[in-house]
Amino acid sequence: LTQIDAAAESIDKGPYRHFMLKEIYEQPKMIERSLLQRLGKTKVLAEALGPHAAPLLASVSSVQIVACGTSYHAGMIAKYWIEGIAGVPCRVEVASEFRYRKFKVQENTLLVTISQSGETADTLAALRLAKTLGYSASLTICNVAQSSLVRESDLFVMTEAGPEIGVASTKAFTTQLVALLLFTVALGRHHDIDEATEANIVKALHGLPRLLSETLDLDADIRAMSKAFAEKHHALFLGRGVQWPVAMEGALKLKEISYIHAESYPAGELKHGPLALVDSDMPVIAVAPNDELLEKLKSNLQEVQARGGQLFVFADKAAGFKESKGLDIIELPHVDDIIAPIIYTIPLQLLSYHVAILKGTDVDQPRNLAKSVTVE
Amino acid sequence: LTQIDAAAESIDKGPYRHFMLKEIYEQPKMIERSLLQRLGKTKVLAEALGPHAAPLLASVSSVQIVACGTSYHAGMIAKYWIEGIAGVPCRVEVASEFRYRKFKVQENTLLVTISQSGETADTLAALRLAKTLGYSASLTICNVAQSSLVRESDLFVMTEAGPEIGVASTKAFTTQLVALLLFTVALGRHHDIDEATEANIVKALHGLPRLLSETLDLDADIRAMSKAFAEKHHALFLGRGVQWPVAMEGALKLKEISYIHAESYPAGELKHGPLALVDSDMPVIAVAPNDELLEKLKSNLQEVQARGGQLFVFADKAAGFKESKGLDIIELPHVDDIIAPIIYTIPLQLLSYHVAILKGTDVDQPRNLAKSVTVE
Repeated sequence: LTQIDAAAESIDKGPYRHFMLKEIYEQPKMIERSLLQRLGKTKVLAEALGPHAAPLLASVSSVQIVACGTSYHAGMIAKYWIEGIAGVPCRVEVASEFRYRKFKVQENTLLVTISQSGETADTLAALRLAKTLGYSASLTICNVAQSSLVRESDLFVMTEAGPEIGVASTKAFTTQLVALLLFTVALGRHHDIDEATEANIVKALHGLPRLLSETLDLDADIRAMSKAFAEKHHALFLGRGVQWPVAMEGALKLKEISYIHAESYPAGELKHGPLALVDSDMPVIAVAPNDELLEKLKSNLQEVQARGGQLFVFADKAAGFKESKGLDIIELPHVDDIIAPIIYTIPLQLLSYHVAILKGTDVDQPRNLAKSVTVE
Repeated sequence: LTQIDAAAESIDKGPYRHFMLKEIYEQPKMIERSLLQRLGKTKVLAEALGPHAAPLLASVSSVQIVACGTSYHAGMIAKYWIEGIAGVPCRVEVASEFRYRKFKVQENTLLVTISQSGETADTLAALRLAKTLGYSASLTICNVAQSSLVRESDLFVMTEAGPEIGVASTKAFTTQLVALLLFTVALGRHHDIDEATEANIVKALHGLPRLLSETLDLDADIRAMSKAFAEKHHALFLGRGVQWPVAMEGALKLKEISYIHAESYPAGELKHGPLALVDSDMPVIAVAPNDELLEKLKSNLQEVQARGGQLFVFADKAAGFKESKGLDIIELPHVDDIIAPIIYTIPLQLLSYHVAILKGTDVDQPRNLAKSVTVE
């Protein structure tokens, strides 16, 4: 495992106006670094999860993920991967709920915690509680090597994002997703992931830094789009499948730094209530990779347009969206489904950043929030 | 099973201004009816789930609940009961996500669908899909005896709510909760529910209609409170544990009929982002029964007050809240934890109703929404 000393890295903004913007732009580099010595040409290297991982993972028959905030969204995305690709049942819960709920632990369940700081109070308490409940082992996805979560877990995957100063997490989130994908492969080898599937995932990961850079090139378009939000007080973020938690994370970013009340829904739930909110004051943002749910999503978006909602869609070039009155499109490079959640996170980070700039908020230190929530 | 013919009941508003208000007030009666011939003195009767239930439930080792909208919230509450009281692992998913996700079905998993109409398109499609996936059996919680879900499920528990005309579901939701509690007991007999636990639940259910009536007596206080929301565009609903989905349902009601952007969070997640939204324009509503999470919730609420947020708390008389500047309290009767989610739903229904009246919206037919979502 490559361990890079945080103190050795300069903690300044460089040419960027805010730490958050610097950290958004660092993502291709940090993700490349997080893949170093972990990826072979067609395989995830055994070293990726440390020498003790294989025997522990061999007996795992289900996974319980526990996290808070942005890290919880990473866990929700991982659930789609762990169940859909590795073929292992996976549950995800916010730590402050997990800690206080009664339930039985199923045999051979691995507890996975996710936290940038490794000191998140509820997540750490959940790990300590879990040790008394009969989980087979614990693994943490973490950005701070000296942290309590790393020290107290059986296994860890460091996210290698470097110090994150902006309170609203960006590069920590996307590197968590990379770590969770490596974990999915390592676990899935003992279950449903065959060599061809692994080779496809590895190929997609090798291409990820370049695709992230291409996506960052959309910055000027996203800045232009952000003007439509400067006077708004609400926003609805929609996605389906693995893109639903991407939409959740996009809504959280906008909340955190622009103080716009942004909420996300799985698009199929629109008709069951939130559609009543949709009018010309409620911009609706959708993430629309060219996946098998695209046609379903398009039908959901037509409902929004029919009610006078202004739509902003981040879509695959091949998704077949056409700009029209009330429908703004930003086209993303075509990417493999497996890395789409990582790629589609980027424009939502940039959107929230530019909206916050227009609103004049304190981007790196939003009101009421602390970087690490080390008290309950 | 008592089956009451919907056509035989008068479908008019009686003395009420709206169907929704009538349906809110019908809840004690409909819940009493839904308990008829299902509750003995200390036991749930074998007839409650029909003659075929016992052998099917005996082999169930996990539960998958699938539903949409309000019914999904009922499922989320049931998860706390099924795992915490019956001791059976339970997963809950919105139908439009469940249908399109890849996963493996665990052995001996019972599929439970919840729908007022029994025709909800995504939920019905989920049931039909599930039959191809290896679920051990299916059960539906439904309000329409002739519906597709009832016809196509192995087992059913009718909610006996009578026809629900208001688009925003009220009595269908609380009767779903009663049905889910009966199901929890029937299932739990094969797992962690002993005679004493069952007797306690049955005792609480026998007292439920009277406590619901007492809670409805708070109507005038809630109407007075509603004035504080008439000019607001946002609201945050907080709960912890089983009260989190109660808060979700409260937020959905306010969204649906008053078009106020209401969102709910498990209170422990506040610090991980949404606290940035809290200022004097963002009223915060909390449901605070006198349970073991009360002290944790109080600490979350102090954070809201410290940021200038106006708090509205529905609390147990014994919870120890004192009204003060920025803190409005409505005291509820002291109730057993097991029925608290049903009781605490009532004031949130009344609040959304009175706010909608002040806003002048079409309460029974809110914009953009249909009563039953029979298309995807």
